[in-house]
Amino acid sequence: MSLARPGPRALSRRLILSKQQFRNYAAPGEGSIPASKRKYVPTSGTYPLGFKVGTAHVGVKPSNTRFDDLALIAAEDPCSAAAVFTTNKFQAAPVTVSSEILKRRKGNGIRAVVVNSGCANAVTGKAGIEDAEAMAKKTDECFIKDNNGEDDGRGSRTLVMSTGVIGQRLPIEKITSKLPAAYFNLGGTHDHWLSAARAIMTTDTFPKLLSRTFTLPSTGDRRYHIAGMTKGAGMIHPNMATLLGIMCTDVPIDPYPLRNLLLSAVKDSFNSISIDGDTSTNDTVAILANGAAGGKVISTTDASDPDYAAMEEILTDFSIDLAQLVVRDGEGATKFVAIRVTGARSYSDAKKVANSIARSPLVKTALYGKDANWGRILCATGYAEGVRSVEPSHTTVSFVPQDGSPELKLLVRGEPETVDEERAAKILEQEDLEIRVRLDDSGGHEAEGLGDFEERKHEAVVWTCDFSHEYVTINGDYRT
Amino acid sequence: MSLARPGPRALSRRLILSKQQFRNYAAPGEGSIPASKRKYVPTSGTYPLGFKVGTAHVGVKPSNTRFDDLALIAAEDPCSAAAVFTTNKFQAAPVTVSSEILKRRKGNGIRAVVVNSGCANAVTGKAGIEDAEAMAKKTDECFIKDNNGEDDGRGSRTLVMSTGVIGQRLPIEKITSKLPAAYFNLGGTHDHWLSAARAIMTTDTFPKLLSRTFTLPSTGDRRYHIAGMTKGAGMIHPNMATLLGIMCTDVPIDPYPLRNLLLSAVKDSFNSISIDGDTSTNDTVAILANGAAGGKVISTTDASDPDYAAMEEILTDFSIDLAQLVVRDGEGATKFVAIRVTGARSYSDAKKVANSIARSPLVKTALYGKDANWGRILCATGYAEGVRSVEPSHTTVSFVPQDGSPELKLLVRGEPETVDEERAAKILEQEDLEIRVRLDDSGGHEAEGLGDFEERKHEAVVWTCDFSHEYVTINGDYRT
Repeated sequence: MSLARPGPRALSRRLILSKQQFRNYAAPGEGSIPASKRKYVPTSGTYPLGFKVGTAHVGVKPSNTRFDDLALIAAEDPCSAAAVFTTNKFQAAPVTVSSEILKRRKGNGIRAVVVNSGCANAVTGKAGIEDAEAMAKKTDECFIKDNNGEDDGRGSRTLVMSTGVIGQRLPIEKITSKLPAAYFNLGGTHDHWLSAARAIMTTDTFPKLLSRTFTLPSTGDRRYHIAGMTKGAGMIHPNMATLLGIMCTDVPIDPYPLRNLLLSAVKDSFNSISIDGDTSTNDTVAILANGAAGGKVISTTDASDPDYAAMEEILTDFSIDLAQLVVRDGEGATKFVAIRVTGARSYSDAKKVANSIARSPLVKTALYGKDANWGRILCATGYAEGVRSVEPSHTTVSFVPQDGSPELKLLVRGEPETVDEERAAKILEQEDLEIRVRLDDSGGHEAEGLGDFEERKHEAVVWTCDFSHEYVTINGDYRT
Repeated sequence: MSLARPGPRALSRRLILSKQQFRNYAAPGEGSIPASKRKYVPTSGTYPLGFKVGTAHVGVKPSNTRFDDLALIAAEDPCSAAAVFTTNKFQAAPVTVSSEILKRRKGNGIRAVVVNSGCANAVTGKAGIEDAEAMAKKTDECFIKDNNGEDDGRGSRTLVMSTGVIGQRLPIEKITSKLPAAYFNLGGTHDHWLSAARAIMTTDTFPKLLSRTFTLPSTGDRRYHIAGMTKGAGMIHPNMATLLGIMCTDVPIDPYPLRNLLLSAVKDSFNSISIDGDTSTNDTVAILANGAAGGKVISTTDASDPDYAAMEEILTDFSIDLAQLVVRDGEGATKFVAIRVTGARSYSDAKKVANSIARSPLVKTALYGKDANWGRILCATGYAEGVRSVEPSHTTVSFVPQDGSPELKLLVRGEPETVDEERAAKILEQEDLEIRVRLDDSGGHEAEGLGDFEERKHEAVVWTCDFSHEYVTINGDYRT
């Protein structure tokens, strides 16, 4: 594979993908998954060595009398771990507790991630903190009984996550009483992983699970694995959302580089998706690396290190694919839309504009209505705050169909095109769409006092979906 | 009346109101206005001296074969004028043109405002600018024929506004050909004013018109008048929205103080409402002051000048009432919600938090669903960007019913209350609601290292509505 680090990962991505297993998307034989989403659920996978997952039924929501809602992701040996948490000032208790655990352990010696759905344990005060700590402690105890997770004086080895309604206490005794059952159920098969991905769902309509195998430059043919699951269908916006993500790999990576790799991957993936602009109290994306596949340890954050560079691309690509599954399952979504903003003076400018478009209820309802109302795209471009790159006379907006047919220009350098509405309507019939906003369209006249076009090299992509009646239905009646 | 200038306008507002006419809300006998909104449409009014308004049917939207969609607001003599425009970088042509006209005339000698609905003349390039200029010029010509609006070498005397779909050219010849008809129809009756308020509607379900009479300290019993109309039901967010507002008064005010008075009034009114977080290309709020009622000219911006201070309060109160009509008519809205944030370190902090809550699709769908999901309020409080005033342990959230019944506390100093859900549901059945977020709730323990509570004196209110299925329907299918 290519060892060079191209700015956008595009080039060598193809090379990496060619070494990865094909993802096998098909119906998992569960009637409750909408037919249109079954293709996103894998029927098989190859999972990282040394990890096991298990689930149990707690009934966190009293109305749930049947489905597993507790998941345990466990490593046979202590792992390096890193996590990225919500920027919301009202951090949920599991966020506070997991963040503390990682700090105290400096990312070393983590054994497990325990997750419940049905209740977010958010805005639950001191009692909520105690509940989250109890979840971690009870999980630790399972391992201690196993004689392989002794107390080393640095506290819990378990990261805790919760997702669901805000402001209600966890039924903590029910949860801790079922933790041994989840531990007992641990296993490494595809079905185990899929059950766990299912147990962390809330309004998700399908479990989100991916796995891949890959190689690294310094270790030749040694095969490494990464697997990940995620959930989240509403309250999704950069930084990050009611979004949980757990990734496990058997590559040996030290905690510090692992943290850098995760930050870099999350920026272009979990922090580049938006369902509704709401950033939740609970978002957490965590990664565990146990080194079980052996080989050279990644111990540097030097981008010129071939293994580090390769791992950064692999993790970023994998995270993008995981994060996109969340958008595919956006609450009430009927569309999957990439907002690509190019020609900005900075990445931050490009991303602010893309986010502004992705958040606009008017853009999102127009997409739902299959209305080529590009004026609303322009409008959202124009009100993005704190952006220096937008000048109407250099702004060009297109629909880029994802079926390979040519781009449809809607506005060129601030002037509207005569749009073939029939073609626009056909493009909007498709589920996938790219909206491309070029901020540096000089029309070939760079000379006209626009000497700064050289600087306009930055681009950002945000993935989003439309706003439908169903979004309102789901969120107008979520707690009942 | 009180001449002191209390910080919040609350105190002397009552005194001013007692001198104002009662607004007479009743059905105007037009079947198409929803029954629940008829109370907001006045059946009579007392209008400023020296202003006349007229309308005509153009059919800007070809589907409109019947309703007047062109309005002319005209002064018999040249006026002082001021306007506030959108902050969107994609300024519509009428915004550019009106702003130029005001600059060139330094706010002097304005004779008219001409408004069309059905097409926003936004993102229409140079041709759109020419169209807007043609609208102004044709209006000027009506007055010149009248021998009372001669060209003084400082250009047009007409402000132009357009509202409707973005990115389409105006049918400018149809419009200019109907301008003489609107001019011919000018008159000063309540019906004239109401027809004009109706002609500027787009998705509005009712015309928004208010009028008042008042006195000023220095002129004793001399009666002054103010009248205003506004439109806008979607794409509404601070700074300002597809929102047009036109106010006329017969108080004599010089252009410079008039501009300051307008800026001050807009901050607490038109810039404190949010329907969907979208800021449009066209928003304009303009005021014309012709001095026709005589008396002392307001020529200072000195807040200690009794007339200036009184006028600031009157205009702010009047603007708040006008702006609230827009929220009452929010697209698909079933609720009228005041978000009041108190105890912030700055007005900016308070307003950012209030805006963040007002924009959250999750808060808005919960309000629609009558779901006391206050966790979402907290969540939106926590992700407000660039705010220093939010600390979970000092944050208290309540529902304040507007029927006079006691406040319902939902969260006290970061800890959830045991909420009487039945009472919460009852409160949410009501159309009007205040959500109060206190950021300085120390629980009486200021001593505990919280010495800065003294500074926490700032508050802001933003008015908003809920997000309903109907919002999606209206905006998914707006252009057809």
